[in-house]
Amino acid sequence: MSHPLDLDTLPPMANAIRALSMDAVQRANSGHPGMPMGMADAATVLWARHLKFDPADVTWPDRDRFVLSAGHGSMLIYSLLHLVGVEAVTLEELKNFRQLGSKTAGHPEYGHCPGVETTTGPLGQGISTAVGMALAERLLNARFGDDLVDHRTWVIASDGDLQEGISHEAISLAGHLKLSKLIVLWDDNEISIDGDTNLSDSVDHRARFEAAGWKVLDCDGHDMKAIDKALDAAKTSDRPVMIDVRTVIGYGAPNKQGTAATHGAPLGADEIAAAREALGWEHGPFEIPDDILARWRSVGDLSAQERKRWQDRLEACGSKGAFEAQLSLTPPPAALDALRAYTARIAAEKPALASRAASGNTLNAIAEAFPGLVGGSADLTGSNLTKAKSQGVVTADDFSGSYIHYGIREHAMAAAMNGMSLHGGIRPYGGTFLIFSDYCRPAVRLSALMNQPVIYVFTHDSIGLGEDGPTHQPVEHLSALRAMPNVQTFRPCDALETAEAWACALERTDGPTTLALSRQKLPHLREDDGSANLSARGAYVLREAEGGKPQIVLIATGSEVELAVKAQEMLAEKGVRARVVSAPCLERFLAEDRDYRESVVPAGLPKVAVEAAARWGWDGLIGIEGGFVGMDGFGASAPAEELYAHFAITAERVAEEALKRV
Amino acid sequence: MSHPLDLDTLPPMANAIRALSMDAVQRANSGHPGMPMGMADAATVLWARHLKFDPADVTWPDRDRFVLSAGHGSMLIYSLLHLVGVEAVTLEELKNFRQLGSKTAGHPEYGHCPGVETTTGPLGQGISTAVGMALAERLLNARFGDDLVDHRTWVIASDGDLQEGISHEAISLAGHLKLSKLIVLWDDNEISIDGDTNLSDSVDHRARFEAAGWKVLDCDGHDMKAIDKALDAAKTSDRPVMIDVRTVIGYGAPNKQGTAATHGAPLGADEIAAAREALGWEHGPFEIPDDILARWRSVGDLSAQERKRWQDRLEACGSKGAFEAQLSLTPPPAALDALRAYTARIAAEKPALASRAASGNTLNAIAEAFPGLVGGSADLTGSNLTKAKSQGVVTADDFSGSYIHYGIREHAMAAAMNGMSLHGGIRPYGGTFLIFSDYCRPAVRLSALMNQPVIYVFTHDSIGLGEDGPTHQPVEHLSALRAMPNVQTFRPCDALETAEAWACALERTDGPTTLALSRQKLPHLREDDGSANLSARGAYVLREAEGGKPQIVLIATGSEVELAVKAQEMLAEKGVRARVVSAPCLERFLAEDRDYRESVVPAGLPKVAVEAAARWGWDGLIGIEGGFVGMDGFGASAPAEELYAHFAITAERVAEEALKRV
Repeated sequence: MSHPLDLDTLPPMANAIRALSMDAVQRANSGHPGMPMGMADAATVLWARHLKFDPADVTWPDRDRFVLSAGHGSMLIYSLLHLVGVEAVTLEELKNFRQLGSKTAGHPEYGHCPGVETTTGPLGQGISTAVGMALAERLLNARFGDDLVDHRTWVIASDGDLQEGISHEAISLAGHLKLSKLIVLWDDNEISIDGDTNLSDSVDHRARFEAAGWKVLDCDGHDMKAIDKALDAAKTSDRPVMIDVRTVIGYGAPNKQGTAATHGAPLGADEIAAAREALGWEHGPFEIPDDILARWRSVGDLSAQERKRWQDRLEACGSKGAFEAQLSLTPPPAALDALRAYTARIAAEKPALASRAASGNTLNAIAEAFPGLVGGSADLTGSNLTKAKSQGVVTADDFSGSYIHYGIREHAMAAAMNGMSLHGGIRPYGGTFLIFSDYCRPAVRLSALMNQPVIYVFTHDSIGLGEDGPTHQPVEHLSALRAMPNVQTFRPCDALETAEAWACALERTDGPTTLALSRQKLPHLREDDGSANLSARGAYVLREAEGGKPQIVLIATGSEVELAVKAQEMLAEKGVRARVVSAPCLERFLAEDRDYRESVVPAGLPKVAVEAAARWGWDGLIGIEGGFVGMDGFGASAPAEELYAHFAITAERVAEEALKRV
Repeated sequence: MSHPLDLDTLPPMANAIRALSMDAVQRANSGHPGMPMGMADAATVLWARHLKFDPADVTWPDRDRFVLSAGHGSMLIYSLLHLVGVEAVTLEELKNFRQLGSKTAGHPEYGHCPGVETTTGPLGQGISTAVGMALAERLLNARFGDDLVDHRTWVIASDGDLQEGISHEAISLAGHLKLSKLIVLWDDNEISIDGDTNLSDSVDHRARFEAAGWKVLDCDGHDMKAIDKALDAAKTSDRPVMIDVRTVIGYGAPNKQGTAATHGAPLGADEIAAAREALGWEHGPFEIPDDILARWRSVGDLSAQERKRWQDRLEACGSKGAFEAQLSLTPPPAALDALRAYTARIAAEKPALASRAASGNTLNAIAEAFPGLVGGSADLTGSNLTKAKSQGVVTADDFSGSYIHYGIREHAMAAAMNGMSLHGGIRPYGGTFLIFSDYCRPAVRLSALMNQPVIYVFTHDSIGLGEDGPTHQPVEHLSALRAMPNVQTFRPCDALETAEAWACALERTDGPTTLALSRQKLPHLREDDGSANLSARGAYVLREAEGGKPQIVLIATGSEVELAVKAQEMLAEKGVRARVVSAPCLERFLAEDRDYRESVVPAGLPKVAVEAAARWGWDGLIGIEGGFVGMDGFGASAPAEELYAHFAITAERVAEEALKRV
């Protein structure tokens, strides 16, 4: 077939979603039937008549992105993927909904279930991640034109998504950048977990989206024609679009629909039977009649043809190589060459720089040769030093740049970076102060869970930021980031380690990297030529003890490595042989093999660590009896040098703690 | 004097703020002059003619609250506090702006500088905390009437405050509850750190506040009469009010005003001289002429009279005792009695309950006897089990209840709880899933930094929540909370420990407590009568080894204590004597004296810990060579029992790790 399905053929197709959803939740005895049943009609119209999506190639670069921000309604997307014929999503998988090892996890998980574009469930994340996808589309469109990049990002969002604060940041950013190919279907069912949304919410969400620069439409979510008309209208907007889709949660379950009872629990056998009756659905559990399945299986046909035409255009255009290189996760060889050349140069020049400044220099060295690298900051560009000179600023009128003023929106920045990374073709990094890693932590966690190589540039990484005081001085943040699975946190000690940290971050393809960088100037400590990336294994011997085997190991990170080096000298004067270990990335070092770890930090030697942060987590390296020079509580407001003295984070103290232990 | 100052006497008073602000920032060579200079006029009108505030008694319960949400402009509030005559804020303190030990820290800090109502600086927190203050006012007003409780909460907020996601949550909540005594002055200066706000923001903030149910006014921020009129109008609203105060950042600095250059750096000697000239301010640095100072010192007079009349009403009314009891941080004796009686009962009954259910039962036991206890949940009431049967729901029409449906707004909930706690008279607790502690982490940190005894009820505390999968299963969150200074995290193992954790949380007055509670049912493990709170010291011997001295210590928390107990039995069968330590609060235990710690977890014995979470931080107790049975990475979606088996968090594994070490 070569035209979309007629609207009047869609209702039974929507009922197939309803049936699969209530049956799967019932079988799992766990899950959320209300949302898929409520949005089945809208989703059917969207998928059958609007979404550009080829079930045979779920990673086709120019496909539309579909984001189920209301991730608890996961049976909606699993039903859709199965019905349209994504091979991996078998009926068996639906039957194994929420079971160990199935692709049909409780919430849709990227990388786990083919066709799921992003992991959702934590509310507000999907819609915000989608902003990044829509932004990536515009960025790549500006580089490669409509022939290669021209697709939409569709979102189904719940009341919960819209109540979360991150949604404000995300829709403001999308409105500001006029991301007109972003279309959000708000499942306006007036129900949240606690009951009617009016228990807690009186916001006029339509007015609110308009205030953020969006076009707002509405439709009855159970009127196929009205839905179709709204989707058509949305596609012609010059701004992002929010469609207020008025639905009845659990639509079809006669005794429970429209109530919170359908939200998060199985309907029960009786109500399911009643729903079958009410919907006129005469088929058994997990049974989809052939004609309805055939209709569903046909909906990808048009897109498949489009994909073939796209493939032809790709082959024919002159930029296939550049396009594919941009989509690659690996940085361009020219950028890596530039990074190596820069690294060699600073190894020779030994500049004394704040590591945030060293990071800025690193970016200046590589940005021009790395078209996929897209930077930004949450309104701290001049402090984070995240903007390379060659980077143009992205605006609503011009997406050819590669630097984004995210505004004071740390959380949406992080989520948008996830979206850009998931979209492909963009390697995003973004800056804020380390203290504000807390503001974006839920999105950092999703970077980690989804294995996305997003780079977080967290400057002002300790009391070393000085006068701004305890509200701005991270103490526990390094520990809290290190605690998070699949995050690698680098805290480089000088310009060379900063370049190495960037190399590690850029070469990493399976998870996020955070860079903790100093506001204050740091001396250059490395004496080698920088040809081997010593930071890559997480820790290494920076200064070996002189005059014999070491008696103690001093371990430090970032701005405190300088203190360890000074303490080594003080100890040497007292005849004590100390080894100085720089540990820019504890996660990497602790994941190294025992031999390497032992060669750097021998179990048999006493240890003192110094880091202007909480001890929490350090005992794994230094042991309970190890010395720790750091922070016991919150910081204070004063010039940085005075704070270091006040909190006794000094070379003298490191030496003292060492002397106690030899 | 007995009437407010005339408007035409105010301009030089405002210039005094400008002069002090630019001089103090210059002297500190650090700080933010632009905001105080821009908002000096509005702040002067507010303080001189509207704010109810007695400099002689900055903690008078019925004072208006003033929140400088734009905390970076701290010299504004320090100038005001000094000028109106708050004794502690001397001229010397202003000269020591941002210096070690001064009251005038870089950002205003509660408990550090008298008259500062809440710590601000992390953007969005002030305005959201203020929502809690305004809510507390209504709650207490409903209990004690206008005679004792009738005051406003005034906020100065910046563009940054309004861009942050938390602001959406907070203004939605305030609009929903029609907190009409909350008045926000938006410093609409069109400048953020990166430059013009139009670099990143196109939101119509006025429309947005209207969409959230606010009344919106506007005025020229440099026209005293217009400001005064707006403030007057704001005071008669039946909804919260946002005043769009259009200002010029750095107003008065002729060459830099209106630009980001005035935002976060000293103006420099030349520009300060030029500003003195432009403002007609002929006085030296930190010099306030007597007549202007006298005018400022008079502004508290009216309020002081009001305070005296309030004091008379308090003495005269019949509810003085109840009012003062409600303001006390200590729980009412009747509530503590009820808690003790409940504790004794469950010690005898030994119910097998999910700890979230045990928490709900505890609340049911005490809520009625504790009028200041105000609960709520971020739309997870039925899951968090945070609502006691006796608690009425707070609505815009009726503030006599004590349970708040916060909506899907974890971050604003936490900030509002800070505000209620700071306001006084309310002991707030609020619930969400432990995973979403990340969503409210910046506000949790402020609870800790401000020493506020806010109680966080975090349920669904591990993979034990089952099918919802890794997006909902906390792994690193316990560690991340424990890493935060001044937070105490309890993870009770049964109903008795849950009651004890609540007792600890309620008795704590100097910081927040988080309760990590299970979704799944837990056996009752305690065999004592509950008369001594064994959880209070953080860890204790739950089951001593039988038949001789222990050979190994098994340490566990929460739902995994059961596994340690079973492992002890398995080990006993093999002739190995293991001690089981329950460690509901690691922070408390690690802060105990060495003798106690040694008596529970002897240094000389091998250790195995079990917690269905990340190891990060545990080494401080069990050592590097200790065994740890927990999570190495993210969770998965499946029934809970299967997940425990899948991740090998089992009694068998605990026994195995123990056997390796004896």
